[in-house]
Amino acid sequence: MKVLAKDLEQFVIEVLTHVGINDTDARTTAEVLVTTDTWGTFTHGVKNLRGYVRRIKGGGIRTSAVPKVVAEGPAWALVDGDSALGMVTSTLAMRTAMAKAKTSGIGYAGVKNSCHFGAAGYYAAMAVKEEMIGVAMCNDVPSVTAPGARGPVLGSNPFAFAVPAGKEKPIMLDMATSTVAGGKVFAAAALGKQIPDHWVVDADGLPTTDPTGYPHTGALNPMAGHKGYGLALFIETLSGVLTGAAITQHVLSWSFDDPSLRTDHGAAFIAINVSAMMPGDKFRQRVDQMIREIHELPKAKGSERIFLPGEMEWERREKALVDGIELPEDVVMSLRALGEELGLDVNRILR
Amino acid sequence: MKVLAKDLEQFVIEVLTHVGINDTDARTTAEVLVTTDTWGTFTHGVKNLRGYVRRIKGGGIRTSAVPKVVAEGPAWALVDGDSALGMVTSTLAMRTAMAKAKTSGIGYAGVKNSCHFGAAGYYAAMAVKEEMIGVAMCNDVPSVTAPGARGPVLGSNPFAFAVPAGKEKPIMLDMATSTVAGGKVFAAAALGKQIPDHWVVDADGLPTTDPTGYPHTGALNPMAGHKGYGLALFIETLSGVLTGAAITQHVLSWSFDDPSLRTDHGAAFIAINVSAMMPGDKFRQRVDQMIREIHELPKAKGSERIFLPGEMEWERREKALVDGIELPEDVVMSLRALGEELGLDVNRILR
Repeated sequence: MKVLAKDLEQFVIEVLTHVGINDTDARTTAEVLVTTDTWGTFTHGVKNLRGYVRRIKGGGIRTSAVPKVVAEGPAWALVDGDSALGMVTSTLAMRTAMAKAKTSGIGYAGVKNSCHFGAAGYYAAMAVKEEMIGVAMCNDVPSVTAPGARGPVLGSNPFAFAVPAGKEKPIMLDMATSTVAGGKVFAAAALGKQIPDHWVVDADGLPTTDPTGYPHTGALNPMAGHKGYGLALFIETLSGVLTGAAITQHVLSWSFDDPSLRTDHGAAFIAINVSAMMPGDKFRQRVDQMIREIHELPKAKGSERIFLPGEMEWERREKALVDGIELPEDVVMSLRALGEELGLDVNRILR
Repeated sequence: MKVLAKDLEQFVIEVLTHVGINDTDARTTAEVLVTTDTWGTFTHGVKNLRGYVRRIKGGGIRTSAVPKVVAEGPAWALVDGDSALGMVTSTLAMRTAMAKAKTSGIGYAGVKNSCHFGAAGYYAAMAVKEEMIGVAMCNDVPSVTAPGARGPVLGSNPFAFAVPAGKEKPIMLDMATSTVAGGKVFAAAALGKQIPDHWVVDADGLPTTDPTGYPHTGALNPMAGHKGYGLALFIETLSGVLTGAAITQHVLSWSFDDPSLRTDHGAAFIAINVSAMMPGDKFRQRVDQMIREIHELPKAKGSERIFLPGEMEWERREKALVDGIELPEDVVMSLRALGEELGLDVNRILR
């Protein structure tokens, strides 16, 4: 089913205000989720709205929450999310990091008492509009093992960055530090298929091609083994340890755990103000040059393009803003179920 | 062969002053290289001294160089390495990032006109001594391909971080963004062995188990495919694009290219001043708690420990400082060849 981005945003705002979120926060959240869907990152867009609403109704996400900066210095700030929607707290924190970078060159904003924030890439990309390099990351409930362990050790702790370009598209990467997303394992299990032996470990912590054990007895593998494990620990440190948020096993799941409880996710945002260090024109030219030189390198047999990170997402977004977003079936089902629960008609925006 | 760390440092200083490096810079470089060897990271320690000396003699590394801060703001600085030894420029830059973090909470120092800087982890670890979180990275001559390409696209651009702990050892990770180090591919080729098919690509950019093509016709694979490629681009941006250093194909090899030329490596260092944001005691307790909770998690079948990144390195260093460093044969050979070239006796320090 197709939907226009503006119609989908309006529906998200309607849903959130219906369950008690104020208009400003509803708009902020809608902008994050629908932008993510225009990129084709459907795992982190409006599909999750139903889960957020469940937690809002349960009280774990508070409708009266007012996230705010609780401590700050010349180039840093700590934000207490007050158990608001993660998208609201994270947007505030990224803006704060950018304000610090504006005056100091670089800015860090750490977040505690947040919840699932959607796609990390959204916040990194916010910086690009202000000619800054953006970085976003967060911790999460453990689902990924570590070398030597046999159960979950850390969350799939995502890392995202975005870099402004000139005539080329901004570089943007949003990656989990697990080998694959849990959703891919579930999909294989649903289809009765085997999986490559580096995706998950079994109950003994050993490689398996059987997807059915996850998440009950096994865990995802970190990307690139000890490297992904180490990077996830770096993210845990900046997002959780330094901010006062919950750490590792103490973070709750936004989707599985009792919706009356706060998840206490942590997150971290860094902005680097390019024009403090180099004329913006020159920087953009240098980024464009790098992108073009990579584009023009020899291709692998059978390959026609070398993509820069984010290129596919920006191309999908351009198309989605003109033609509408082609929502996958699972997203449509989730929106319909949500609409029925709340007595709101989603079918009028689906084409 | 065994060597005492202080004897090895003295030998490095002797070598460097012999070829015209001033005493201070020689001491700085010796400290970096020998610390790296005490960690057991022999690929990035004194083994490379012979290559550095070759470039010093050629003029590509300048004995009269004076690296300095050429631009700065409240939380950032740019350092021009003036074609000094990479270890000298990088130590200055990390100190500068830490000084900025001291007053602003976070500090970034970018570097241009540098050379190979040894192990990134050394600079990240410098921050730990001042109760800061340290991050270090650099670009390098391309040796790693990208999805869709068939030759080298980016360097093996390393990323390192270090986090101070309390009673536990500091967390420290130093990783290349390639799947494996080129040295592992050379070693397999030398032994006539096959390699796993995700280590390198062949002349067509396709997976191969034959190690003999690298580096002449193939390239290393990025770790975790598009994720490692993306992370390497992030590193290239902060180290090369933003600093004014050479980028991707324009960086020269410190070991293979004409030693009379400057390599113009870029690098980036970030320090985060923990105690600006949280009492140091509390932070260290939180890090210790995270480490202990991970240590105590269930182990995989056949595994007795879950290591934190850096734990092996700190244990090796403790042992090396007491018992001496057990140098691998290739390191000893390199030192002997260097000693012969310069007429300096290395055998007197080998046990």
